[in-house]
Amino acid sequence: MPDAKLLEAFPTPAESPFVIEHVNEEFTSVCPVTGHPDFGAVAVVFQPKGAKTGGRCVELKSLKLYFQSFRNEGIYYEAVTNRIRDDLAALMKPDWLLVRTDWRGRGGIRSRVFATSGDVPAHWLK
Amino acid sequence: MPDAKLLEAFPTPAESPFVIEHVNEEFTSVCPVTGHPDFGAVAVVFQPKGAKTGGRCVELKSLKLYFQSFRNEGIYYEAVTNRIRDDLAALMKPDWLLVRTDWRGRGGIRSRVFATSGDVPAHWLK
Amino acid sequence: MPDAKLLEAFPTPAESPFVIEHVNEEFTSVCPVTGHPDFGAVAVVFQPKGAKTGGRCVELKSLKLYFQSFRNEGIYYEAVTNRIRDDLAALMKPDWLLVRTDWRGRGGIRSRVFATSGDVPAHWLK
Amino acid sequence: MPDAKLLEAFPTPAESPFVIEHVNEEFTSVCPVTGHPDFGAVAVVFQPKGAKTGGRCVELKSLKLYFQSFRNEGIYYEAVTNRIRDDLAALMKPDWLLVRTDWRGRGGIRSRVFATSGDVPAHWLK
Amino acid sequence: MPDAKLLEAFPTPAESPFVIEHVNEEFTSVCPVTGHPDFGAVAVVFQPKGAKTGGRCVELKSLKLYFQSFRNEGIYYEAVTNRIRDDLAALMKPDWLLVRTDWRGRGGIRSRVFATSGDVPAHWLK
Amino acid sequence: MPDAKLLEAFPTPAESPFVIEHVNEEFTSVCPVTGHPDFGAVAVVFQPKGAKTGGRCVELKSLKLYFQSFRNEGIYYEAVTNRIRDDLAALMKPDWLLVRTDWRGRGGIRSRVFATSGDVPAHWLK
Amino acid sequence: MPDAKLLEAFPTPAESPFVIEHVNEEFTSVCPVTGHPDFGAVAVVFQPKGAKTGGRCVELKSLKLYFQSFRNEGIYYEAVTNRIRDDLAALMKPDWLLVRTDWRGRGGIRSRVFATSGDVPAHWLK
Amino acid sequence: MPDAKLLEAFPTPAESPFVIEHVNEEFTSVCPVTGHPDFGAVAVVFQPKGAKTGGRCVELKSLKLYFQSFRNEGIYYEAVTNRIRDDLAALMKPDWLLVRTDWRGRGGIRSRVFATSGDVPAHWLK
Amino acid sequence: MPDAKLLEAFPTPAESPFVIEHVNEEFTSVCPVTGHPDFGAVAVVFQPKGAKTGGRCVELKSLKLYFQSFRNEGIYYEAVTNRIRDDLAALMKPDWLLVRTDWRGRGGIRSRVFATSGDVPAHWLK
Amino acid sequence: MPDAKLLEAFPTPAESPFVIEHVNEEFTSVCPVTGHPDFGAVAVVFQPKGAKTGGRCVELKSLKLYFQSFRNEGIYYEAVTNRIRDDLAALMKPDWLLVRTDWRGRGGIRSRVFATSGDVPAHWLK
Repeated sequence: MPDAKLLEAFPTPAESPFVIEHVNEEFTSVCPVTGHPDFGAVAVVFQPKGAKTGGRCVELKSLKLYFQSFRNEGIYYEAVTNRIRDDLAALMKPDWLLVRTDWRGRGGIRSRVFATSGDVPAHWLK
Repeated sequence: MPDAKLLEAFPTPAESPFVIEHVNEEFTSVCPVTGHPDFGAVAVVFQPKGAKTGGRCVELKSLKLYFQSFRNEGIYYEAVTNRIRDDLAALMKPDWLLVRTDWRGRGGIRSRVFATSGDVPAHWLK
Repeated sequence: MPDAKLLEAFPTPAESPFVIEHVNEEFTSVCPVTGHPDFGAVAVVFQPKGAKTGGRCVELKSLKLYFQSFRNEGIYYEAVTNRIRDDLAALMKPDWLLVRTDWRGRGGIRSRVFATSGDVPAHWLK
Repeated sequence: MPDAKLLEAFPTPAESPFVIEHVNEEFTSVCPVTGHPDFGAVAVVFQPKGAKTGGRCVELKSLKLYFQSFRNEGIYYEAVTNRIRDDLAALMKPDWLLVRTDWRGRGGIRSRVFATSGDVPAHWLK
Repeated sequence: MPDAKLLEAFPTPAESPFVIEHVNEEFTSVCPVTGHPDFGAVAVVFQPKGAKTGGRCVELKSLKLYFQSFRNEGIYYEAVTNRIRDDLAALMKPDWLLVRTDWRGRGGIRSRVFATSGDVPAHWLK
Repeated sequence: MPDAKLLEAFPTPAESPFVIEHVNEEFTSVCPVTGHPDFGAVAVVFQPKGAKTGGRCVELKSLKLYFQSFRNEGIYYEAVTNRIRDDLAALMKPDWLLVRTDWRGRGGIRSRVFATSGDVPAHWLK
Repeated sequence: MPDAKLLEAFPTPAESPFVIEHVNEEFTSVCPVTGHPDFGAVAVVFQPKGAKTGGRCVELKSLKLYFQSFRNEGIYYEAVTNRIRDDLAALMKPDWLLVRTDWRGRGGIRSRVFATSGDVPAHWLK
Repeated sequence: MPDAKLLEAFPTPAESPFVIEHVNEEFTSVCPVTGHPDFGAVAVVFQPKGAKTGGRCVELKSLKLYFQSFRNEGIYYEAVTNRIRDDLAALMKPDWLLVRTDWRGRGGIRSRVFATSGDVPAHWLK
Repeated sequence: MPDAKLLEAFPTPAESPFVIEHVNEEFTSVCPVTGHPDFGAVAVVFQPKGAKTGGRCVELKSLKLYFQSFRNEGIYYEAVTNRIRDDLAALMKPDWLLVRTDWRGRGGIRSRVFATSGDVPAHWLK
Repeated sequence: MPDAKLLEAFPTPAESPFVIEHVNEEFTSVCPVTGHPDFGAVAVVFQPKGAKTGGRCVELKSLKLYFQSFRNEGIYYEAVTNRIRDDLAALMKPDWLLVRTDWRGRGGIRSRVFATSGDVPAHWLK
């Protein structure tokens, strides 16, 4: 089941602001209604705080394990997206954070969900 | 025929604002003049109100059945788009809503129609 | 319902053999089990007999109307493909004929079906 | 020759503003200098006035016939674009209108021309 | 775990030979060494025997459930491919059968595996 | 109207066999039934005879003018293709010749036609 | 060598502002250090002044000849771009002008250069 | 190891501001944890100061050698990006500078990092 | 330096013949003349002998380490390809084996090299 | 002018047959009629003889310089292709050789020419 304790962070290497995007195209969870698997991609974009104010970045391997912990969880698209946003915002307390999920589709409809924390620049919101 | 009563909604799972996009690439209705079928894609993008103010999200399977109810309806591109906008705005009363239809073309001309409700961010309007 | 009587043919304009391919990317029928619509493409490739031996070509508008006659028919992928092959082979009695259907997918699986009449050259069989 | 009288319009179906884009990828006219044909695409994007203030939309088939009336006209890229803008603005008196032409190229140079009427939103201007 | 008993078949609808391809782009199993999930696509192509000789086709929904039964199985690429080939060949006894798996890659290397039964035409073998 | 006298040829520059392909993506003629323009591409592929046996190649500018002579001709897809094949075969008497036309589609159906002269290698026939 | 006298202009056909983009994908000059040829694309985008204030547009064939005059010139990427900007700004005195060059790359690095005159809208600057 | 002394600059050829983008798709360094190589692309975008105020541009071949000096260095994505930003900002003191790295992915996750100096226009920040 | 002892093999899991393709898009070595790095992709395709006759498959992680051992080797394209072919043929003694390298290009020329062992089916040779 | 003496060869590194393809996408010559430059790509594919029988491979940098020697030569597509074939066949005396040129097009027509020496496998001839 989803487990935020798998997530680890390291101190940001710079005082000046910069932006990181991680995209995992191999995300899978389970539809809580039908029990069939859902497949999609998850993108995480954020600007860590500066080093002097305790800025932190999520560690890549821990992020992978955290994503894998959703594998057998019955959970809706919207809840996946909001949960990842909440867990990563709590971990890093970044200047801003965007979580974007992109689902392969069911019944002929494909979906995307965008959840944010802080003031995400407009050019990232689509 | 198009039937808004097929649509169902569920309470938004979050208080903080987030955005959902559903795209159906298997939409078909009938041209009211020639009787030939039209084929296209319908995208719905919206930001539900927060949970405390009664925010609601359209349920995915009901959306699929609602789209299928246009299958044998004789109706123009513009009317399809405005009708879906009206039905979904009435169902969810979202912060904002965009309906974008993209038609495969007739007589060598392909068309898109954009109908909105509320203040849709500019980066979604194309 | 599918209606082969909609199909019309005209005499081939040449004695020397030639090949014609028609592709319709706007084909739709209905799944006989679930009642949900199926969407796909249908390709027809054939070599008419020469003019002196009564070669005939399917007329394009009649082919379109014939394809539209499947719109509300509950019918499997395999049956659609074999039926079109049978109807067009009976209409044209070509040297050879290939019908290839390409379906958008259900439950995460997309399918293609290839039905032939006569000796179709190998380079057309995929 | 280009004939604005071929254009027909119908009343907009909505009071709330919406946007329509028509793209014709089969446009052809003739170079007035060399007499050789030019090939390109024409896109028309506009926001009709609301219904209560007499908003009108161009009818699709009439637009196709109007575009075909340029087929044997000797006329420059810039003049084609400005003429279509003028004719459609006179027909519909829309809130705003963009005409964008995209030419396949001559002498290794391909060109685009953008003509506007009213205040076209920036996201449409490229 | 992989379960061939989930597979169902139905009688082929035609006496004349035809070919069916099913592609599932949402296949996942687990690496038996690292425990990390593998992601890939599985294609199944076959020619059923004719109806009079007991030809059978795999049923689409049962195929989907069968593929899902590999979800938490620790199994190598090569074994996945050979196992699916064996299970489907036993189920349908087709004229010929090809199973092609296409894996997203680990350590910078992506892989494909092709397993066959019977005399698969050369144009399908890549 | 189509005018084979526009075509010019020059002697092949080599005794050893070689192959030439010319593709024109800006072909247009007129549908003889509806009077609407058709748009498509025409490809010509051929192997001239060797120089000592009088091999000839079509001159590029004359080919362009010949294609333009179909601009206002009412003529079917099949007839266009066979006519170009006949005119070029008469002009060049090549070892072999293929004419392939690829039409943008009407009524949702796009078409290709392949006409040959002599023994065209199989890898060119699709 | 580059020769601005090859450039010709004609009066703008409209009082209302419009925008023209010309793209030449067949640009070549010579590296002044190594003597090897450079290959790239040059795009010119501009808004001519209105007709009453003497607006002018560059003539297409003269632009082609001007670009060809760089063919054997030893000149850096940056100098090419600034020179074209200067020559065209002097010729047309447009409201604004952008010259964008896009080079195929040397030593594994591909480059683009953007030079402007006047107030180029932001959506053109990338 | 990374060596900023490899970098060379030359005076900007223009007083008016312009923008240069260099993209190297053949960047490689080493993961400091696993010792396996990382592969990616590095883009550098900047606006040099005007010539009168001492504006300078990085020389292309020196940039290539500088990038190659990371080949056997164990260094994180974030550190690579910030280091290149620092070294180039120190070399050129440009009006603004963006370094964007795009990594091919490890463990199914691909990443991008954006580091800036000065006031980078918004259209470059994604 | 290239080290064939890094390669490991495991027994083929099947008696019936099957085919495996591994593609590594992150290959790098060094040009022996200039000392600059080369970048490319390496594909290995083979059919192992059956299990009873001692068929073996190369182990994926060992293949990755073997490829990495070329990282700082000065070696020509042709020698890389022939060496990998020789090392893998010696390791697995397969029914047949193809090694295909695809290089990103130097001086505007990109190259591919194909080396084989045994009787590789024609559809793999391009 | 084209200069075969620029070409250099080195002994093939292997006794067993293998295949090499070089593609130059930056080829330019001049049209002998109009004086305008032509742009295209040149591909060279060949199988050198084995080492014991004196097999030779063209050296990459010399090939680049040889291609550049056509830069200001007025020469037809067909002559370019046959000349390169003749020069490379004389240099290497390979088992077989294919030269394929692909031209960007003039007057709306793009062309390819294929010249061969020896018995080129069919899968390379398109």
